[in-house]
Amino acid sequence: MYVNGIGRTKFGALSESLPELIYQAMCNAIWDSPISIEDLDAVYVSNFLGGPYEKQLHLNSVVSSLLPDLRLPIIRIETACASGSSALYQALISLSKFDNIMVVGGEKMTNGTSEESTLNVAMAGDRLADQKQGLIFPAHYALVAQQHMQKYGTTHEDLELVSFKNHKNSRLNPLAHFNYKEITLDMIKNAAVIASPLNLFDCSPISDGAAAVIISKEKKAERDVKVIGSSLATDHISLAHRKEHTTLEAAKIACAEAYKQSGITPKDLDVVEVHDCFTINELIALEDLGICEPGESKDWIREGKTDINGELPVNTDGGLKADGHAIGATGLAQVCEIVSQLRGEADKRQVEGAKIGLTHNIGGVGGTAVVHIFERSN
Amino acid sequence: MYVNGIGRTKFGALSESLPELIYQAMCNAIWDSPISIEDLDAVYVSNFLGGPYEKQLHLNSVVSSLLPDLRLPIIRIETACASGSSALYQALISLSKFDNIMVVGGEKMTNGTSEESTLNVAMAGDRLADQKQGLIFPAHYALVAQQHMQKYGTTHEDLELVSFKNHKNSRLNPLAHFNYKEITLDMIKNAAVIASPLNLFDCSPISDGAAAVIISKEKKAERDVKVIGSSLATDHISLAHRKEHTTLEAAKIACAEAYKQSGITPKDLDVVEVHDCFTINELIALEDLGICEPGESKDWIREGKTDINGELPVNTDGGLKADGHAIGATGLAQVCEIVSQLRGEADKRQVEGAKIGLTHNIGGVGGTAVVHIFERSN
Repeated sequence: MYVNGIGRTKFGALSESLPELIYQAMCNAIWDSPISIEDLDAVYVSNFLGGPYEKQLHLNSVVSSLLPDLRLPIIRIETACASGSSALYQALISLSKFDNIMVVGGEKMTNGTSEESTLNVAMAGDRLADQKQGLIFPAHYALVAQQHMQKYGTTHEDLELVSFKNHKNSRLNPLAHFNYKEITLDMIKNAAVIASPLNLFDCSPISDGAAAVIISKEKKAERDVKVIGSSLATDHISLAHRKEHTTLEAAKIACAEAYKQSGITPKDLDVVEVHDCFTINELIALEDLGICEPGESKDWIREGKTDINGELPVNTDGGLKADGHAIGATGLAQVCEIVSQLRGEADKRQVEGAKIGLTHNIGGVGGTAVVHIFERSN
Repeated sequence: MYVNGIGRTKFGALSESLPELIYQAMCNAIWDSPISIEDLDAVYVSNFLGGPYEKQLHLNSVVSSLLPDLRLPIIRIETACASGSSALYQALISLSKFDNIMVVGGEKMTNGTSEESTLNVAMAGDRLADQKQGLIFPAHYALVAQQHMQKYGTTHEDLELVSFKNHKNSRLNPLAHFNYKEITLDMIKNAAVIASPLNLFDCSPISDGAAAVIISKEKKAERDVKVIGSSLATDHISLAHRKEHTTLEAAKIACAEAYKQSGITPKDLDVVEVHDCFTINELIALEDLGICEPGESKDWIREGKTDINGELPVNTDGGLKADGHAIGATGLAQVCEIVSQLRGEADKRQVEGAKIGLTHNIGGVGGTAVVHIFERSN
């Protein structure tokens, strides 16, 4: 199973409609791929909030309208912020039936007010308990950060370093939401508190955008990237049902399964994209992925090990924090970055000699976790 | 590929929450099946309007919370009113990876006002053109009915006969939304017009409910039902892009493919469930499925051929019209009915000697179409 085409739009506050964004990403992926649109056997569409924001569901039929008269099997998949990589996970399974599949994800979020955005994103959390207790997402992850700090001595300075690194990386990514302005440690340190201990620079933004990936059963071109691991796990939706908040159980399960499938260990990784919806989650991801021991992620960020030229570069595109978080597209934008890196086409962000990369995409506070592992094939 | 467990709730205006409904349907399916919950390898969840009505997305994680600590791969699928059978279609493909899969669909709609329901259901239509022109769903299907009447001489009396038959059938179905009251032809004829030529009794209701189906790679029990055809196709979402309104192109494509897979012809069918979201769509379905020629469906309903004791019984459970239309559950409730019929367990609705059955489930006005064909295996 190979990725042979990737394409995305810029992330940010964009003027295009959701179908226009999806169309752009699909065109870019087709242009990047050796196959043509008529070779597609099926399409998977990932989107989280098309209903609440855009009053548009039934997006599989919208995507059918954007293609020539192919009338393909097209299905929409939604697993909150993990929708993009869940769609890829499903599409990879469906290569048992189809030869070539497009996976496209998109989100249009910036038309809403702040309040709408807060309430819409909260739909990824438990309605009957957590939502009604006021547990919107910054509050969810603030609890997680508090626990991690208490248990392991992680500090807000550590979170500031995550934010600083990701904003630095995003300035090398022309498609990133925040690529135009230098963000200093002082700006990060002095930002307004959102939910203590998290401040504005700990939170990923509300972004519009789309991303697409084309996969095929067979290798088609030298630069195709092989998928060597693909795994999805779920967990209880309410934080009240979790025994531990400093780790995401579903992420550990998905990760162990993906390592098993691929036969690699964390030491074999050359570049990874992790789900830094809030900075604390980048640190927890390093621990859940076995890249470091529980509690040691703070040392990794302090020592610069996750910089582009560090021991294991993390979120070279800027991550959700600074590349942006166009929710339905996010998991696929991660794949676009890893594929670019493994092809050696990541331009100023290129990690020298990258051969194996991983994506880690989370829904809610780990209610869904999806891990993919990719390998250069030439 | 076999169905070995089915379960559903009553359809109607129910007091239970969406997770409670889903839980009931899952329990009923497990009780009905020879496998136990620990044997499940994955779950697919279908739901259309959990975001707009219930402020609850990320339903795959909600379902994870309803199971023991299994942390399975669970994915939510949404293709408007075809969500249930799209999830089954996907799950059948995924039997390439998994041995046993639960497919569960649910919808909670009756908490909303009439206006909310109208606007929410309209999200299955095109936002950028049709929705903004006021094309809510009764208006969509009124246009379709007008065209069919003009082209083929179908009359409102024919639609009344569809409604009358389905309400008659639903009185034999204890779980149906409308099973408590006799509906006479006079009541149907004299009902308030909704969108001419459609009146209240041409429209399926807003229902709460859930339904679940368990499928396995291997046959587990004598009464298991074999899946011999499964196909999904899509079409343009906007009616403005359709050349013809008296037929649904995607349904014809899905149907041709399902017949090809199963090696049967329409003449081999013993019982079918079709998507009568509006009465006109039951007639069009008979034509699209090749059960009769285009324009001849009016003769079939006039001659009683689709009655439970007719030549080919259609919507023995009452159909969407009278069993109800709990959208995310609808496609799976159709499967529950066909499986009951092929097992010989349909009680007062039993079609004698039924061996082969079909389900036809539509999203929007044919933006998605899914067809499944089932065969008795004993």
